[in-house]
Amino acid sequence: MLTFPISEFQERLTKTKQRMAESGVDVLLVTDPANMNYLTGYDAWSFYVHQLLVVLIDEEQPYWIGRGLDASAARHTTYLDNAHILPYADDYVQSTVKHPMDFVSDFLKEKNQDRKSIAVELDAYYFTAKCYIRLTQELSNARFIDGTSLVNWIRIVKSDNEIDYIKKAAKISEKAMQVAFDSINEGVRECDVVANISHAQISGMEEYGGDYPSIVPLLPTGEKTSACHLTWTDEPFVDGNPVIIELAGCHKRYHSPLARTVVVGMPNEEIQRLSEVVIEGMNSALDIVKPGITCEEVELAWRNSIEKNGIKKESRIGYSTGLNYPPDWGEHTASLRPGDRTVLQPNMVFHMIPTIDLGHVGMEISESFRVTETGCEVLADFPRELFVKPNIRLA
Amino acid sequence: MLTFPISEFQERLTKTKQRMAESGVDVLLVTDPANMNYLTGYDAWSFYVHQLLVVLIDEEQPYWIGRGLDASAARHTTYLDNAHILPYADDYVQSTVKHPMDFVSDFLKEKNQDRKSIAVELDAYYFTAKCYIRLTQELSNARFIDGTSLVNWIRIVKSDNEIDYIKKAAKISEKAMQVAFDSINEGVRECDVVANISHAQISGMEEYGGDYPSIVPLLPTGEKTSACHLTWTDEPFVDGNPVIIELAGCHKRYHSPLARTVVVGMPNEEIQRLSEVVIEGMNSALDIVKPGITCEEVELAWRNSIEKNGIKKESRIGYSTGLNYPPDWGEHTASLRPGDRTVLQPNMVFHMIPTIDLGHVGMEISESFRVTETGCEVLADFPRELFVKPNIRLA
Repeated sequence: MLTFPISEFQERLTKTKQRMAESGVDVLLVTDPANMNYLTGYDAWSFYVHQLLVVLIDEEQPYWIGRGLDASAARHTTYLDNAHILPYADDYVQSTVKHPMDFVSDFLKEKNQDRKSIAVELDAYYFTAKCYIRLTQELSNARFIDGTSLVNWIRIVKSDNEIDYIKKAAKISEKAMQVAFDSINEGVRECDVVANISHAQISGMEEYGGDYPSIVPLLPTGEKTSACHLTWTDEPFVDGNPVIIELAGCHKRYHSPLARTVVVGMPNEEIQRLSEVVIEGMNSALDIVKPGITCEEVELAWRNSIEKNGIKKESRIGYSTGLNYPPDWGEHTASLRPGDRTVLQPNMVFHMIPTIDLGHVGMEISESFRVTETGCEVLADFPRELFVKPNIRLA
Repeated sequence: MLTFPISEFQERLTKTKQRMAESGVDVLLVTDPANMNYLTGYDAWSFYVHQLLVVLIDEEQPYWIGRGLDASAARHTTYLDNAHILPYADDYVQSTVKHPMDFVSDFLKEKNQDRKSIAVELDAYYFTAKCYIRLTQELSNARFIDGTSLVNWIRIVKSDNEIDYIKKAAKISEKAMQVAFDSINEGVRECDVVANISHAQISGMEEYGGDYPSIVPLLPTGEKTSACHLTWTDEPFVDGNPVIIELAGCHKRYHSPLARTVVVGMPNEEIQRLSEVVIEGMNSALDIVKPGITCEEVELAWRNSIEKNGIKKESRIGYSTGLNYPPDWGEHTASLRPGDRTVLQPNMVFHMIPTIDLGHVGMEISESFRVTETGCEVLADFPRELFVKPNIRLA
């Protein structure tokens, strides 16, 4: 069930160890499920209990530590040999007495790593404050270092194999967006449209199936378009209302997000005008993407364009994306925003999603793109325009 | 959009403050999205950025602190007035320089709470080690206390309104399980069956829609039934193989999980026998459920039954369930396992899921149940048996 050749996992590990060496790190504890997957292939819905990889700088394979129940998932999905799969007993799970990090500490002591410098992903979702407190108590002679995003920054440049998965995900995103567009109509319940989108995302294509995206389809309508992270209701769509559709195709945990806005019935002038501003701004930003340009320069192109049209926007307009697990398909590295001087390189992938929110109405039209050798490749082939239902497509 | 009367949110807050007082807590920071929802109604897919509630023991309303983009979701879904919705600027988001907890610290200083005793949910998913480190650095005169599960333990006994949502979720779980059973056949791709299940979960019933369950449908087959948290592939189901179906209906974030096992073609004797052991064990455990019994007594009834049949199992057989967000529909309080002396009370809800894993094959048949005044009410009405496809139902 390996998703990449073992040699690719090994290259990733080599890069990780280089970064560890540069930062004086002997031991890296990897808790972010995307990073666990990236380094070993591990893939299971088990991140709701404590689990991690231990990367020792002078050993060939990382160690997987997780709940006993999930050891066989590690055997199915990783390249690790059995000696590197270390299950803890079930009475550690959500116990008020025992904590899985005690198991980790015991293991590190056994391996004589308890006086070393240990990097942990301090700001990763599943590395809780308790994990940190228990480890630092039990390993009081170790030096703890912040390893947040150490592996994420390696992930930011994708291999060709990874790009292949992302392109497959993009095909799924096109299909799901078309299903959304076809399903939305006055009187249809929001939940029924989302059900169709989800079906399309998971079923995927004839040639390959879909994986679960890390974020559910978001479909705010009417005034709620200015609250873009609200989830759907069972209310019917209403004539005259805009609907934002934000979704991703996902294949083997790799994402290609896509957003469009559709109006049920005829759009009013304000929405029409807003969509033109957003599309013009996006085009300006996409136009300047190429290796050597910085993230903040891409944002500046957008900002110059919309300010010319009298609109200001404060939040970032995009972020690096690819491999991830709930609750996010962003990679938590580079953002397209002022101050981010990350230099674009070939095979970086971003989701550019410049939402504009006027308070009473919001607008989202987004693209995922790959940085190429000379410019930018937009991943999904879906018309970049404001849609209207029923069946009138504006020029 | 409030999901409960304001009075119910206020009652929950009163109970929370009682617990705070009992533990000498002046300030409670609530990071668990389910607890945020429970105390205010807040519901949005925004837990991938830092957000929390500040409960001050001597103030009437909690404060919501979150990303600027999400303040309007707080206005849509909570009963809080505008003065209690405090958005932070977007440049705090996934920044290497600024951290949202600095905003929280500044607020607590402003409110003269920086010398008080502050409880934080140390082992909650979205309260990272970094959150704790930044808060304790900035509020060095405060006394920090572990508030993990303080609110969760209030949630364990449900109101009648909550039970109503859970029963609605149970209806959705029945529908989704039937769809799963109808869809699974030799040669059908796993992803296509999951797509149908997901459609049924989200579309829900004619009278009300479905919400996204906190865990995706799990559908391991063949040898992978002993790796119950693996996600689906795009491989076709194979004749003779067992398939575990674990899913939940969800309505307004309240879950009712359900698992069954189906065999594609005729089951072999081992699987048939295993299912009989599991069902007999479950029946024994469900039979003794009533107020006054402890969690470990329920597990013991199961264990006595299966050991009589020559089988031993080490992991817990169930947990409290109800309101939650990804990645878990368990509530992280009581577990049905040895050592858990939690006493059952009316309107507690558990998911009893005694998986048996023989290494080469696993079996899951589960029920969600409510503790009643006198016993136990199983929530989903779905035959408790091993299923076979095509269309032969074993007695």
